[in-house]
Amino acid sequence: MRLLAATVASLSLLGAAFAHADQSRGTAMSTTSSASPALEDIRTVSPALEKYASGTIQEDLWKRPGLSPRDRSIVTVAALIARNQTIEMPHHLNLALDNGVKPAEISEIITHLAFYSGWANAMAAVAVAKDVFTQRGVGADQLPMASPQPLPLNEAAESQRAARNQESFGTVSPGVLQFTTDLLFKDLWLRPDLTPRDRSLVTVSALIASGQVAQIPYHLNRAMDNGLAKSQASEVLTHLAFYAGWPNVFSALPVVKGVFDSRPS
Amino acid sequence: MRLLAATVASLSLLGAAFAHADQSRGTAMSTTSSASPALEDIRTVSPALEKYASGTIQEDLWKRPGLSPRDRSIVTVAALIARNQTIEMPHHLNLALDNGVKPAEISEIITHLAFYSGWANAMAAVAVAKDVFTQRGVGADQLPMASPQPLPLNEAAESQRAARNQESFGTVSPGVLQFTTDLLFKDLWLRPDLTPRDRSLVTVSALIASGQVAQIPYHLNRAMDNGLAKSQASEVLTHLAFYAGWPNVFSALPVVKGVFDSRPS
Amino acid sequence: MRLLAATVASLSLLGAAFAHADQSRGTAMSTTSSASPALEDIRTVSPALEKYASGTIQEDLWKRPGLSPRDRSIVTVAALIARNQTIEMPHHLNLALDNGVKPAEISEIITHLAFYSGWANAMAAVAVAKDVFTQRGVGADQLPMASPQPLPLNEAAESQRAARNQESFGTVSPGVLQFTTDLLFKDLWLRPDLTPRDRSLVTVSALIASGQVAQIPYHLNRAMDNGLAKSQASEVLTHLAFYAGWPNVFSALPVVKGVFDSRPS
Repeated sequence: MRLLAATVASLSLLGAAFAHADQSRGTAMSTTSSASPALEDIRTVSPALEKYASGTIQEDLWKRPGLSPRDRSIVTVAALIARNQTIEMPHHLNLALDNGVKPAEISEIITHLAFYSGWANAMAAVAVAKDVFTQRGVGADQLPMASPQPLPLNEAAESQRAARNQESFGTVSPGVLQFTTDLLFKDLWLRPDLTPRDRSLVTVSALIASGQVAQIPYHLNRAMDNGLAKSQASEVLTHLAFYAGWPNVFSALPVVKGVFDSRPS
Repeated sequence: MRLLAATVASLSLLGAAFAHADQSRGTAMSTTSSASPALEDIRTVSPALEKYASGTIQEDLWKRPGLSPRDRSIVTVAALIARNQTIEMPHHLNLALDNGVKPAEISEIITHLAFYSGWANAMAAVAVAKDVFTQRGVGADQLPMASPQPLPLNEAAESQRAARNQESFGTVSPGVLQFTTDLLFKDLWLRPDLTPRDRSLVTVSALIASGQVAQIPYHLNRAMDNGLAKSQASEVLTHLAFYAGWPNVFSALPVVKGVFDSRPS
Repeated sequence: MRLLAATVASLSLLGAAFAHADQSRGTAMSTTSSASPALEDIRTVSPALEKYASGTIQEDLWKRPGLSPRDRSIVTVAALIARNQTIEMPHHLNLALDNGVKPAEISEIITHLAFYSGWANAMAAVAVAKDVFTQRGVGADQLPMASPQPLPLNEAAESQRAARNQESFGTVSPGVLQFTTDLLFKDLWLRPDLTPRDRSLVTVSALIASGQVAQIPYHLNRAMDNGLAKSQASEVLTHLAFYAGWPNVFSALPVVKGVFDSRPS
């Protein structure tokens, strides 16, 4: 962590070149084991991967229409946290901030995934984000409050959801259902510093990225109800093929197709 | 690892305050990249997560009836090893020992998960546990023998299990079935320093925590045969929602319901 | 990473004893947090695991007929990369090279899994392989070119595959299908420095090791079309039981059985 802090500090000296250096995985990043390898380090193991990194991914994938760079950053950060892949987090947290994701939104993404990916995933992300925030001068005033004024609750939809869960699993684990209602849907989902649409984008990305196929239908429908367009959901799959691997995306495809087909076009 | 050792050494100076400091994630932990962030570090990224850590999780979850703190520690440690999340291991191995899990039981949990989660998961846990044991003065005399006198084998049940596997998969991979019998059920499961009930608790927790839904029915039935109460299994799900993430638990719910429904109440 | 480099450097002084020291997890490896624990460190946590490491795994598993040490190394390295388990990578990359896997093949395995396991998995492997290559004097001349002359494409089979995907998922994510054709099957799979049979072995191992059961049928059939014998596929399962954990293998067994049964014997 101290090595990492030193590295990030040295990056700051690049000043205006920072965003670009980071984007292209500048050499300064290569001195610590906690950060992703620089292009020149990738080359010493696989010249092909260097080519794919600077060409296919940076030029072809990230510049595709259908999903904004900001959305791509949200999807990527969610996938990295869900998969606990800290090595790429310094690069992608910085890139996300460069792409317009606000520090408060980064904070909420990590908070959200503490529950949707597991507490330790969030702790690993906190350890990285702490240094990125310090380096970029993100202070407490830019973070969401612990207990802000919540968004209004859609009482009807929430009652229906809770009733369905109660009917299915009320006898299996009342504790899970209680926390699902009180902690997730009446607290976490109502936190205002991440829009419901972005919160859904984070959730769906994390589910696909960690192979949680059975949980995709509910959350993809919710995402689309919250404003995620079908064309955007489609492009999320394309983006995640690179960051979560092809097999996770191919296992999600039939489920996503089922959701698309079940909704009025 | 040396940084970590130094940190754990500094923690020991806290003497009687150790358990509490550890429980509340004291600041001493925050100096190394290998340990979970202290509450004050969490706050610099997400004041909400600090609130959930000290409130929801520490006060609400861990103090719920239905599962003892010792059992909760076993479930948590199993989940962390199964998910290879070393960042939270120093905290939770110490907490487990504080909660009455014996060093010999920690040793057996790691040994068990070498086979149920994969060899490298156990190696990562060994690297952390080694320092925790050194710090707390746990010597070789407190560890299980390499080849102790085994528990008696239930020959009838084991014959039935082996025959069922042979019928299903005898032609697919005789090697897997041979090691399953000789190494797992006639060796590992008979090691006496972890009770069959606790060994089952570790197995079921690891399966749920790593999304191995298809393997839950056999092992949950075995766990209940070994003395895990339905109310405890139910609360294991509640606990794992936090440590393995909601989606893993929701994917397990219908399978657990199937097992519950299939057994005489 | 610098600690690791120092450790690997010190290992090189062992000269001719290197391979054996590495095989037996020599003590020199134990000084860094990035490398797997030495046998004497394993003993301080679990004498049983030390016994299983030097007996069951090294003597029984790795010396079984049915799969060569070279193939076992390919399977193991693929599993470690797919599961992002860097702690065991220095040991197993060295062992793979000792077992006859060429540096160019290691490079291609990492490149392949960038797409089949996710980009960050490959980056984590690059960070380890870079130091192993440096230590062993593997230079750029031993690495595959970024854009080599591709192997010939089986146009008929590829057209059929693409058409089937198009029919199933053409409306869900055209982006995924486009990259699947252009990047994977008309580029990655045609790279000549890893034989199609070995590339399939890597793919199948990664799928089983990361629980991607739904993707096994296509790729196991492809592997067998590419020359992987049924007896070898069977032994891959045995090997992966240890490196990916029993549950992943038991979840794969019925799917593998389905593939075996569907093919002419």
